[in-house]
Amino acid sequence: MAGRRKHVVVVGGGFGGLAAVGRLAAEPVDVTLVDRRNYHLFQPLLYQVATAGLSPADIAAPIRSIVNRNPRVRVLLDEMTGVVPGANRIALATDATLDFDYLVIATGAQHSYFGKDHWAAHAPGVKTIDDATRVRRSILVAMERAETNRQENVARREAFLTFVVVGGGPTGVEIAGAVAELTRQTVAMDFRFITPKCVRIILVQSADRLLPGFPEDLSQSAKQALESLGVQVRLSQRVTDIDAAGVTIGEERIETTTVIWAAGVQASGAGAWLGAATDGAGRVVVGSDLSTPDRPEVFVIGDTACVTDAAGRAVPGIAPAAKQQGHYVAEVIAARLGGRPSPPPFRYRHQGSLATIGRQRAVADFGWLRLRGFPAWLLWSTAHLFFLVGFRNRIVVGANWLWNYLTFDHGARLITGADLPAAVSPMM
Amino acid sequence: MAGRRKHVVVVGGGFGGLAAVGRLAAEPVDVTLVDRRNYHLFQPLLYQVATAGLSPADIAAPIRSIVNRNPRVRVLLDEMTGVVPGANRIALATDATLDFDYLVIATGAQHSYFGKDHWAAHAPGVKTIDDATRVRRSILVAMERAETNRQENVARREAFLTFVVVGGGPTGVEIAGAVAELTRQTVAMDFRFITPKCVRIILVQSADRLLPGFPEDLSQSAKQALESLGVQVRLSQRVTDIDAAGVTIGEERIETTTVIWAAGVQASGAGAWLGAATDGAGRVVVGSDLSTPDRPEVFVIGDTACVTDAAGRAVPGIAPAAKQQGHYVAEVIAARLGGRPSPPPFRYRHQGSLATIGRQRAVADFGWLRLRGFPAWLLWSTAHLFFLVGFRNRIVVGANWLWNYLTFDHGARLITGADLPAAVSPMM
Repeated sequence: MAGRRKHVVVVGGGFGGLAAVGRLAAEPVDVTLVDRRNYHLFQPLLYQVATAGLSPADIAAPIRSIVNRNPRVRVLLDEMTGVVPGANRIALATDATLDFDYLVIATGAQHSYFGKDHWAAHAPGVKTIDDATRVRRSILVAMERAETNRQENVARREAFLTFVVVGGGPTGVEIAGAVAELTRQTVAMDFRFITPKCVRIILVQSADRLLPGFPEDLSQSAKQALESLGVQVRLSQRVTDIDAAGVTIGEERIETTTVIWAAGVQASGAGAWLGAATDGAGRVVVGSDLSTPDRPEVFVIGDTACVTDAAGRAVPGIAPAAKQQGHYVAEVIAARLGGRPSPPPFRYRHQGSLATIGRQRAVADFGWLRLRGFPAWLLWSTAHLFFLVGFRNRIVVGANWLWNYLTFDHGARLITGADLPAAVSPMM
Repeated sequence: MAGRRKHVVVVGGGFGGLAAVGRLAAEPVDVTLVDRRNYHLFQPLLYQVATAGLSPADIAAPIRSIVNRNPRVRVLLDEMTGVVPGANRIALATDATLDFDYLVIATGAQHSYFGKDHWAAHAPGVKTIDDATRVRRSILVAMERAETNRQENVARREAFLTFVVVGGGPTGVEIAGAVAELTRQTVAMDFRFITPKCVRIILVQSADRLLPGFPEDLSQSAKQALESLGVQVRLSQRVTDIDAAGVTIGEERIETTTVIWAAGVQASGAGAWLGAATDGAGRVVVGSDLSTPDRPEVFVIGDTACVTDAAGRAVPGIAPAAKQQGHYVAEVIAARLGGRPSPPPFRYRHQGSLATIGRQRAVADFGWLRLRGFPAWLLWSTAHLFFLVGFRNRIVVGANWLWNYLTFDHGARLITGADLPAAVSPMM
């Protein structure tokens, strides 16, 4: 096989996959990047699309335009469906197959409803652009309906103006804060018959504090910041049922038309594809070089992998961890290609934890430094602008943020994708 | 009824409806603005959403935020379905009704397929945001499929890379130019196996020149500009059939997966609602004060009205005409409310005709001045930026345009709204 360039297949154009491709571009290999979407999504800001602060294109960049400088990288719009047994070959949704010498699986995670899959229809999460525009639509339609239902049915109006967020991790905290600002400010400025006092936002968290990954004092700061925005924070409570008309929290029934899910994730199907051992969240348990035990030429990274690093720590499912893993497996593959010894086992460098609460506050934990309030928010927005892929997106998002900040405007307040809601009731 | 404020209902939040509402805000009347969408759309730039140059939110502004300064203006998200016979009352899609003293119908127009409604499924037009994202998706998916079909089936690849625009008016000319730039530049920069030479864009026009509303020399300039972008312009030719696999132009069959309709419009249903006389395009024939002959308290404006103005000219279906009519009917209503004589019959002031061709050229006709090429383009972009509703949109669109101009980037190149296309074929 001398002379044939090796072929690395990377599945998934998220943070992990792109980092792997970027590092491999320096090596004499052919790379094929497979993704079922044609764009890379800056997922940490997706909640701002769901709350009408940003447009989808502000936080997404076409994968082809990210990798187009390297002629050895090919992009394939397709979806992985499995590994062909006994061969170095993956199966794709289009019935095509793809041979590889090395395979990097970076296919991320999706929502998990803890076995209650029927909740998904009533409680969308915020993992994809289509998720986010669905949530945006739900919030905006609910306010319109509340406005037109002002006279005849108080209970119905209250249901429209009740927004429930399930899950008190960073995603749930960020969504709850953004929903509070969107609804209260919009209602105050643009509506005639409903007032900010009518709006109720409830954040349900099963643990006894928000942001369990943060130090306790920052959890407390986050709770206070949310409460000052008018969010009702319910700790140590669990959602026991969700249907089209509302949610049940413990024994308490709450009528609402908008429930947003931020509670659980489940890794994509890599465990089943590989017949590999997985943890409770479906993540493939990988070795110290992030390869799978049975197939050393197959690597799993990011939210799809269960990784305990060289220091014995569980690696969290966040963007910086995925990037580090992508870069690391590319180093491992490069070493093997060059006949060099493998790099030392993967070691995760934690750069800090950040969560924002609305337009002015955030909490940040760097171990040696903890920030809260406005300084943390400034840091959060600078960091996110810096990491946004593509300079164009950076200026557009920057302009949008500055504008929102100065005016309280939520410019992307569009109800798209379907006809008029059927149940709007008479106004006069 | 002394003391009760009169109620004006304006149906449609387009250019005409918003102009009427804006002028009526100065009068002691209650105004209700009904629209089935929650946003005003800057339709002249919609083709840029269809060709990935702008995001939907760049050219749309929530209606509530446009009119929120005036407490006597209410906004209702609903859809008009008719007029209740014998009463000053309209029926709405939600089974509600709305009483009025004066009614302004400004519900616009939709595509007309000249009786071939089954063509609609294969040849979307560009009238709504959902239309535009559908066209964008079709173009982007076609390029992806062409890239993966490079080896096995040449005819199939050619069909993916053939884009047919039907209609040689301003909309068709602008779409054809933008499709040419999007596809050729993107293919050159981001794809490996297809080249700009593989791309074919065909503009079909039934008349013997493009832009029949413009002077002949500008029609010729537009044709040359399109041809220099690689568009095949076919004059005096008609589309005789459209199906999922292609179009027939006269007797010639052309295989294509992307057909964009810019050929005909049909007014919304106002004629049927009012039992009023209409012209061939379904527009209600109104009197010299834009009211309907049988109901002087009902006005029809914009693309829904067939207006011959005081100078005997047919008023064109463009944004400036709709704005002037909206302002005019508000004056008429204000005069009647104040017991003053009606203003003189409506007179349309033509401010000029503009059409852009790609990123660098346009044609402009002001009667006393004709421009073409880059000077016309500069004028076109300045005028459009100036008229965009909402300062925020203006800066974002300005930043996007400048960026696109400098980099050839089409940042909104996202395939959203559905899963992976099923028919992508194997790559290797």
